[in-house]
Parts: sequence; C-alpha cells; structure tokens
Amino acid sequence: MFSSWLTPLHRGLATPNGKIVQLIWGSLPRSLTLSSQRRVPELSSFVTRTNTCGELRSSHLGQEVTLCGWIQYRRQNIFLVLRDFQGLVQVVIPQDESAASVKKILCEAPVESVVQVSGTVIPRPPGQENPKMPTGEIEIQVKTAELLNSCKKLPFEIKDFVKKTEALRLQYRYLDLRSFQMQYNLRLRSQMVMKMREYLCNLHGFVDVETPTLFKRTPGGAKEFVIPSREPGKFYSLPQSPQQFKQLLMVGGLDRYFQVARCYRDEGSRPDRQPEFTQIDIEMSFVDQTGVRSLIEGLLQYSWPKDKGPVEAPFPSMTFAEALASYGTDKPDTRFGMKIVDVSDVFRNTEVRFLQDALSKPQGAVKAICIPQGAKYLKRKDIESIRKFAADHFDQEVLPVFLKAGQSWNTPAAKLVMEEQGGGLSGRLAAGAEDVALLAAGEHRRACSLLGKLRLECADLLEARGMVLRDPALFSFLWVVDFPLFLPKEDHPGELESAHHPFTAPHPSDVHLLYTEPEKVRGQHYDLVLNGNEIGGGSIRIHDAQLQRYILETLLKEDVTLLSHLLQALDSGAPPHGGIALGLDRLICLVTGAPSIRDVIAFPKSFRGHDLMSSAPDFIPPEDLKPYHVQVSWPTDSEAENSLNHPHRPES
Amino acid sequence: MFSSWLTPLHRGLATPNGKIVQLIWGSLPRSLTLSSQRRVPELSSFVTRTNTCGELRSSHLGQEVTLCGWIQYRRQNIFLVLRDFQGLVQVVIPQDESAASVKKILCEAPVESVVQVSGTVIPRPPGQENPKMPTGEIEIQVKTAELLNSCKKLPFEIKDFVKKTEALRLQYRYLDLRSFQMQYNLRLRSQMVMKMREYLCNLHGFVDVETPTLFKRTPGGAKEFVIPSREPGKFYSLPQSPQQFKQLLMVGGLDRYFQVARCYRDEGSRPDRQPEFTQIDIEMSFVDQTGVRSLIEGLLQYSWPKDKGPVEAPFPSMTFAEALASYGTDKPDTRFGMKIVDVSDVFRNTEVRFLQDALSKPQGAVKAICIPQGAKYLKRKDIESIRKFAADHFDQEVLPVFLKAGQSWNTPAAKLVMEEQGGGLSGRLAAGAEDVALLAAGEHRRACSLLGKLRLECADLLEARGMVLRDPALFSFLWVVDFPLFLPKEDHPGELESAHHPFTAPHPSDVHLLYTEPEKVRGQHYDLVLNGNEIGGGSIRIHDAQLQRYILETLLKEDVTLLSHLLQALDSGAPPHGGIALGLDRLICLVTGAPSIRDVIAFPKSFRGHDLMSSAPDFIPPEDLKPYHVQVSWPTDSEAENSLNHPHRPES
Repeated sequence: MFSSWLTPLHRGLATPNGKIVQLIWGSLPRSLTLSSQRRVPELSSFVTRTNTCGELRSSHLGQEVTLCGWIQYRRQNIFLVLRDFQGLVQVVIPQDESAASVKKILCEAPVESVVQVSGTVIPRPPGQENPKMPTGEIEIQVKTAELLNSCKKLPFEIKDFVKKTEALRLQYRYLDLRSFQMQYNLRLRSQMVMKMREYLCNLHGFVDVETPTLFKRTPGGAKEFVIPSREPGKFYSLPQSPQQFKQLLMVGGLDRYFQVARCYRDEGSRPDRQPEFTQIDIEMSFVDQTGVRSLIEGLLQYSWPKDKGPVEAPFPSMTFAEALASYGTDKPDTRFGMKIVDVSDVFRNTEVRFLQDALSKPQGAVKAICIPQGAKYLKRKDIESIRKFAADHFDQEVLPVFLKAGQSWNTPAAKLVMEEQGGGLSGRLAAGAEDVALLAAGEHRRACSLLGKLRLECADLLEARGMVLRDPALFSFLWVVDFPLFLPKEDHPGELESAHHPFTAPHPSDVHLLYTEPEKVRGQHYDLVLNGNEIGGGSIRIHDAQLQRYILETLLKEDVTLLSHLLQALDSGAPPHGGIALGLDRLICLVTGAPSIRDVIAFPKSFRGHDLMSSAPDFIPPEDLKPYHVQVSWPTDSEAENSLNHPHRPES
Repeated sequence: MFSSWLTPLHRGLATPNGKIVQLIWGSLPRSLTLSSQRRVPELSSFVTRTNTCGELRSSHLGQEVTLCGWIQYRRQNIFLVLRDFQGLVQVVIPQDESAASVKKILCEAPVESVVQVSGTVIPRPPGQENPKMPTGEIEIQVKTAELLNSCKKLPFEIKDFVKKTEALRLQYRYLDLRSFQMQYNLRLRSQMVMKMREYLCNLHGFVDVETPTLFKRTPGGAKEFVIPSREPGKFYSLPQSPQQFKQLLMVGGLDRYFQVARCYRDEGSRPDRQPEFTQIDIEMSFVDQTGVRSLIEGLLQYSWPKDKGPVEAPFPSMTFAEALASYGTDKPDTRFGMKIVDVSDVFRNTEVRFLQDALSKPQGAVKAICIPQGAKYLKRKDIESIRKFAADHFDQEVLPVFLKAGQSWNTPAAKLVMEEQGGGLSGRLAAGAEDVALLAAGEHRRACSLLGKLRLECADLLEARGMVLRDPALFSFLWVVDFPLFLPKEDHPGELESAHHPFTAPHPSDVHLLYTEPEKVRGQHYDLVLNGNEIGGGSIRIHDAQLQRYILETLLKEDVTLLSHLLQALDSGAPPHGGIALGLDRLICLVTGAPSIRDVIAFPKSFRGHDLMSSAPDFIPPEDLKPYHVQVSWPTDSEAENSLNHPHRPES
C-alpha cells in the first residue's frame, strides 16, 4: 500500500524523462504556496540565490538570476534540470568553447549534486515550451556555474528508490525528504499550525505557554517513559499530555492557554503510533462545552488549507449512545450511510437459532446493515471472509442475506430469513434489489461493535471493487458527546475506571447519580471525529476539590497523594474551566491524505519505536549509567526468547 | 534580591488598600496589550463573560456586562474589587433588601474566591474617580452574582506572600502565576515568540519542523539524559539541541527551517540553568555569516516589544580576540566603558615586583582598567574585597592605584607606580583625577580574564553606591566572531576539542592551517551577546564529508561510527548551510528585566532540578522499572554521604 502511494511520485523523480517529471513537479508550486497564506513570503532573502528555481516565469524574462539547487537530470549534455523545494527549471548548458569550464562542471557533476548557476532567463525556442511545467515557458542561459557539493555516493540509485521499503526510506530519511510528497506534507503542516497560532494568539488572545516534559509520574501512568535523575532511585517521567499543567494554568489565572505540545506515550510496538507525538493543547476558563466546540470549529475553518475546500460549521453532533447504535463505534465515519438498524421486532418469531437465542436474552437484539449493491460487488469469497472475520475477531455469527430473490448464494438460514422476514427486513433497511443485508445478534453493544467494524470492512471492499462510496475530497467532522464518565475495569468489572481521565466533570444533570449509580453518569467529554478518525478530545474539568477528591478516592480508589498539588490548587480559587487537545499528526495525515502519520513527521520512529537513521535506542556504556544510579537487568536467555520486543526481530 | 524585586508587586496584591493596589495594577493593561500587536484580540469570545474586568472604561458606561474574576479585596462590605488577567474593577455591593442574596454572596466569599457578576457600568460619583486606575472612572452596579468557586484554603495568607522564599513560590506556582509580574512575563513571551514565527514563517518562508527528542546519544554527550527503552540495555537520549536534525533537513532540501525547540541538558545542580530549556532554532541553506546575522537582526527588530524601544541594526561586531583584549570575556557587556588597556610599555622600567615578573615572560603583559570616580565611590573594604577576589578566584595579584595625588589609600607599590608611571598611566586610561586604576599582570589571556571579571564587579559596586553606569532601558547587542575552531582540552592540553561543536566550518582563509597548525584555525562561528549575556550562537556548518571526517577522526579523535548517518548525508548532495540558535529563556529574561530565567518559565525546576510543586523527580516502584530492564544501584551509605546531590539537602 505504501509503495503504491509513492509510486507516481518517485517514478517521476527517478526517471530521466522530461514528461513524467514535469507532470509530477508541475503541481508543486501551486500546492506549496498554500492559498490560505495571505502574503507570499520572500524565499530568497539573506541567501546567495536571487530566485528559487521553481518560481521563474515569463515575467522574469531577461532577468539576471542566480539559482542554487540539485541536479535532477541531464539530457544529452545540452540541458540540465535543476531542482529546489519550489520546483524545477531547465538550464541550457553552454556549448561554445569560451564556456568550456562551465560546461565541464555541469556535465560532470553527478545527479543530486548541488550547484549554483548564474545566467539570464530566456524564452524557450518556439515549440519547445512545456505548458505542463510551471517554468515551462522559460529556460536559463548560463554564464557561470559552481559545483557546491558533489553527490558522491547515494545509498541506492535514486531511480530505483520506488522499490525501497519504508524501512529504507526511514534509514535515509534525508533523501526521502527531497521528495515532492514529503516537502508538501511538512510545509503544509508548518503553515496550518501557523494559521492555528494566528487564530488562537492574535485573534482570540490565547497565551502560548510551554510546560515541562520532565515531570512526575501520574497515577496509573503505566505508559510513561521514565528518566533516571542523578538522585538515587528518583525518576522523572515524560507526561502523556500537559493535562495537569493546563489546569494549573487556569488556577493561576492565565485564562486562555494553548501549546503545540510534545507528548510521550510508551506503548511498545504499535503500528501507526509514535512514542512522541504532538497535540494542539488548549484550555480556557469560564467556558462550557459549546464554547470549546465553537472555538475548535473556528480554528479549523481558519487554518484549513483553502484548496481542501471550505469547512462548514457548526459540526454535527451525536451522543455516544447514538454513535454506538448507528455506527457501532465512538468514531463514526459519517461520509457514507450503511447505518446499523435494530431489526429485533422483525425477528420476534424467527426460526433461525442464533437470532432466537439472542432475542431470548434480556439485552439481546438483532441488528442489521445494508450493503448497497452487495450482490453485484461482493464475491462469494468476500462473504466467507466476512463470516470468518466475525468469528475470529468477535466470536460472533453474522448472517448475510441476499435480498434479491433467487440469489443462489444464500445459505439455508438466509433463505429462511428471506422467505419469512425478507419483506420486513428490506423495508426497515430501505434496501434495493441488489443489496445485501448483514445480520448480527446478541447483546446490543457487542452486535453493534461487530456490525460497525463490518460496515468499514465492506466499504473498503466495495471501493476496492470500484464502487464510489466515500468522496476522497470530503472532510466529515462530527462531535461525539455524552460519553459515560466511568467504565467497568476490563480485568475487574466490579470496579470503575475513568472512560477518559479522572478530571472530566460529570454532566450537570447526572451529578446526583455519582453517589448512587456512578456507572450511569455521563461526562462532559467531547470527541472530535473526522472521517472515522478521532482527531481530538476534551472536556469540561472538575473545578471543585471535594468532588475531585470523591471521584479519585471513593470511586476510582486512586492514591490521591500523587495529586495532592492539584487538589490543593482546586481549593485555592480554581475557575471553572475546560479544554481540548487535537492530535496534530493524525489531523495533518488526514488533510494531506497520507497513508501513515509517519509521512507527516520529519523524522518518525518505526512501528517498533526505532530511529532507523541513527539506530536509536542504542546500547550505552555502563559508566554512562553510573551518574544515574541505574544498571541494566539483562534478561535470561529464555526471557529474551519470549520477549515480545525481541531485539533481533527484523524491522519491516 | 529576589524578594525585593517582587516586593512592590506582592505588597500591592496583598494589602487591602486601594491606593497601592491601584498604582500597581494601574500599569497592567497598557503593558499587557503589547503595542507590537497589530490587532486587539477578542478576549471574551466563547466564554460566559461579556468583558474582562480590566478593559472597562467610560466608553462602556450604561452597558450591561457579565464579568468573571477573583475577589482581590473588599472594603467595608460596600465595594469589592474584582481581578482578572486584564486588571481590576470596582464592584458596588448592593445594600437594598431585595438584593440580600447578592450581598450575601459578595460579602461572604473569601478573598481569592472566583465569582461571576452581572450588572451595569456606571460612573463613579464625582470626586471618587481614581485617575491612577485604568478602570478608575467607572464601577459596576451589580444585579446578579454567582459564587463559582470558594477559595477554601490558601497555603499561606496572600498578604504575607511577599515574605515567602522562592521555594514556596515554586511549590505553589499556580498562586504565584496570579501575580502581575508572572502574567506579564508569560504573556510577553508568548507574544514575542508569535512575532518571531510571523517573521520567519510568513515573511521569509521558513518551515516550522518538529524534530524528535527521543534520539541516540551523541559523541561526548555526557550531559544527555538517558531513557531506558523496552529493549534490554538500549536507551534513548534527550538531545541538547536539534543540531543533527537541522543539518539533515538541509540535506533533505527543506531550505529554511526553524523550530521553537525544547532542549535538554543534565548538568546536575546549576544556578539559573534548567534541565529543559527552549531555543529558537534556525537553519538555512546557501547562506553565509552575513545572511544569518541579517536574518537575526531583522527577527529581533520585528519581534521586539515596541515599548522596549526600537532595536537598531546592524548590530556591532567584534572578534573574539578583541573581546578578550578589551573586555576579558567572549560576552562583553558593551553598555559601559571601563575597557581593558594594555599598559605594558608604560611599565617597561617598573620596580614593582609582580609587574616586573610578568613583563619578563614571553607572553607577559600589564593590563589596566579605569574605575571612573572610584576614589569617590569605592570604600577601603571594596578595594580589599577586589584584591581578595583576584587572589581567591584567579590566583593573581591586582594593584589598585588611586590616581588622585595624595590619596592616602595607595599601597607602597601603588605610590611607587603613581610617582613613576602615574602620568603615563593616566594618559593611557584617559583617567580623571577621581579615577582609580586597577592593574593586573601576567599572561595576556589570564590578566584580561581577571580584569574583565573585576570590570563587572566594580560596575555592580559603583551602581550599588549610586553611580549611573548602565542605562537599565538600554539593550546593547553585539556579534562576537572569529572564535578559534579548537581549544586545547582542559585535562589533556596536548589534544584538541571543538570550541563549540565539531560541525562548525573553518574560516575560509584558515582552511590550509587545519593540516599544519589546527589550533590557529578560526571557525565560522558567531555568538550574539546582549548586555553581557550570550543569547545565541551559531555557525556556518561543514558540508563536505571528507573535511568533516578529517576533523572528527584525525583532529578530534572521535568515534565516527556514531555519526556515520551524518557523514553519509554530507556525501549525498548536502548544500552549504548555516544556522543559529537563540536561548529563548535568557532572551525573555533580559527583555522583561526578570532576575532569573525561572521568572519567565511557567513551571521551572529549582536549581537542583526539582519540580517543587509535584516533587519530581520521585521514587517509583521497582515493578514499574521492570519493563525497561533497569534497576536502581543504591549507593552505599558512605557514597551517599559524599554525594554532591545529597537527596536530603534542603532546597533553599
């Protein structure tokens, strides 16, 4: 998947073929100069060049220019294409005897060498213009040239780059960064964050406050990296977010805080997660849910790249219960339908065993989704893999029903359903003749979760088969609200844990339930979802010390001494406050359409947490650990064998 | 020193005395709305208040407003002064029976409680206006009031706050942040950084790129914190700066990079240093020294707060040799004179022994500074402490000579000098009759270093005695250039180490010396100095792999395998590049005039690296270390006794 996404790009970079390169790089200048930027920055201030390669147009004709860039390719020692971050420009290699030294430099320098050329912008001869290349009307008549750095050895031929694994891209990240796509992603990220800062700081008076990353362990901070200090046995901890600090800033009267905050989470090996990541961290005093939501809607409208279409606000909102019932998840992809429908009443008298069983239980229900034109797009093996997926991952049965009469794939059970409930089912699902229904049965949440997952799997399948289901240019935002404040602990279901974190305020109308049925209390938490991805979350916080203490101590059984400073702060005149954090890496990933957050981070870690360029983490000499009073506990051989993080497991 | 700086502020906050408070807070709104900001931000968007307390003026008369803030103080249950980050406003407590509940709330809430009031902006009765208070023409006639949070217990009475140590301020930082000064410092910092971003990003096309903080140890990275990973024996390291990444970004064609970068340095206990700090990190391709210097001058001009006076550019420049000879330091405070003068020729025939001795040696010299009106301002004990300082800290003699004839304090040696070289000395120092000369003798660098230090000590002394020497409103910038590229190692003077870092390019005219007399090579390094403080430094980097390898391997004897990725990158088409980093904490400290960088950081560590609020670093349970394959090496009792970082040593 990854290499296919980069194929056209790198093929473009790699092939010494004017046409393809021009096509690819042709889109660069327009895209890089994001239209949301009000003023075109000076790109050649303070440096030796007069212009960037990519900016030259007919309007520059006759100008004497000095350009610096990389040799993209050379054509028969007559033309050389020079590249910088702004684009490509064609340079005419002088052929007359008097310019022999210039010719020598330009003809002998290997591809990807860095050169500086000075000369005149001239029109291309008639018929040789290239309308697909932004600089295609002009070329550079060179007078002087200087080889600034010869590209001596590339770790691989750039033209073969397309075949390289992501591991190789990460190992030679400094080469990978030269690609159009990485340049675009990092520049868009920078500009979007800048717009966010303008909105927060200049338009709404937020204060950018840096908070420490060397901090104390938080209660339950099992995913926090630890850092030994020079005091024996004492460790700092890298916090997962500035949560405590942002609240303390509100107690300190800062009123409106934001930070583009580096956060840390040690989750071992997790695909598409990074041990360090960035969030747009925001907190406000005297605010309610509506206020925070309006702020974020305005923030995204203001910072959204113009060429990605306008963002419409307010964003729709959905309760957690509704999201679960209709989409089987707390982060619904609302770009398409295929919602989950409760069809229990249709099946009151079913003879299909697993549906019967489910309905006979107190919380039991039958749920269905409708796969549009499934009979046309899905193959028998797809249906099999859907059933297998349900069995393997959810330990549940799923029953596909081809609603088209006479569809031979229907199982006996499906045939039975078609005969007895086919009409009712089609009606409830508003299904057409070519549609397929997927039925699941069981406890509400379990059945919905399964169908929510199958909904996404089927959408991928349909799209892979050519159906247009989700508009790739569509950004569908959604607020999900009214989450439960607590959930039963996975390993001790009799105890409660915070659904998000223990500082979330309860819903005002549910406060009384805290003392009777805490599991029924909704929290003032809100999640922001974009195209089925959670891109942010926040809450109104508890500002009452007594309530905070009750929740921590009595309900969550936490050791409050670790948070005594926060409880004291709440008792010292804490204003009501709330906030949110947006996951910047994921957000930029969605905006750019990149396949992985690693493509919007300059130097990401591999999925195993390695920096493949420098090979971090690495062994260090024992004497370097001495000042920190720690030593390595080397695992025994058998422990090492069993380790999930086997150090010799190859990185792929 | 610290408490005296805060005295007027906290006395103002503390005393229930309208006059003083008004004086102090009177200056708040003007200062907080930095004039460099082009557009006044909306400070009450998205929240329940309609206005901030501090913004109300006569122009708001008759308006219905809702305000949220802290109870600053109450006067005889008639007036209440409400505070928010913007300032103070007077609220009239209603006295009529029908408003009994409002009166009860406003009269019973403890000071520092948070309340919301709604009412009308009315003029103060004639004669009761307070022209020193920005809101002094109006007051609020309250209709409704709500107690948002009662301030239940303060760790100390706020009115006694002034007597608290800095440790107490840090422990209750969330209260300390409510002070005018901390609000001002943090807001100024935020706005100045925002202006820097505008300049770099919007005006000059720099790309804000976030670089990792979980990285690999750098060669000689003795001051890097280590972070155990889940792989046995393997550690990440927190880098001291993004040096490698910024250079790799240039190799990657990013062209112009900046980052407000969090950096880490473990120096154990160091006053006025922080284990984590922030630098404005900048790198450019195709740039020379002049380019970087112009960029920084423009950056500071653009971002400098208007009310701190304009910044004049270009900044003056001085070579390292000149700085040492004239100021005895590489970071001269150029706000005042008292320069070091070489007076060796005056003393060719001196009979004073220690001067004779010095001049008889090959590098020997006699140096002098002139203390203006020293005879008037300095006391006999000052002279004694100067001599003692020279002996204790520099193991050198210093000879004070009172140039005024007949000054009885002159020692016999000084009398001798006065008689024989008095005229010559006065002439060379352009000294007046009341001036005092300080003479030092010995090797050039040692004598200059001593006098450079005494120059600053004497300036402090003179100012403490009432002389006006340095304009407190003056910002005197200076570039220091032409540093040596290498220095002899302190512990092995036969070997070389980098004066700054091994990536600094040699001065073009000195390259040939690398292979013959490397100790004579000047580097393309530049330091930015402000009022005697180094606030930034940078260099043009080596972009040639062969040169970089020669310097690392042959001259510095470093293990190049740790940097093989960088050497490979330089061989893959690295552009010429250079950059700089500004120390943000120190810069903001100087701009605000704060006595310590801790006053411009929201949650600083103590000088021993402790977070006194949460008490980090802290012990963690051994089982939490298990996933990281490390265990604590507890020191023996005697080791612990001797430890410089004794954990029980009290924090002051």
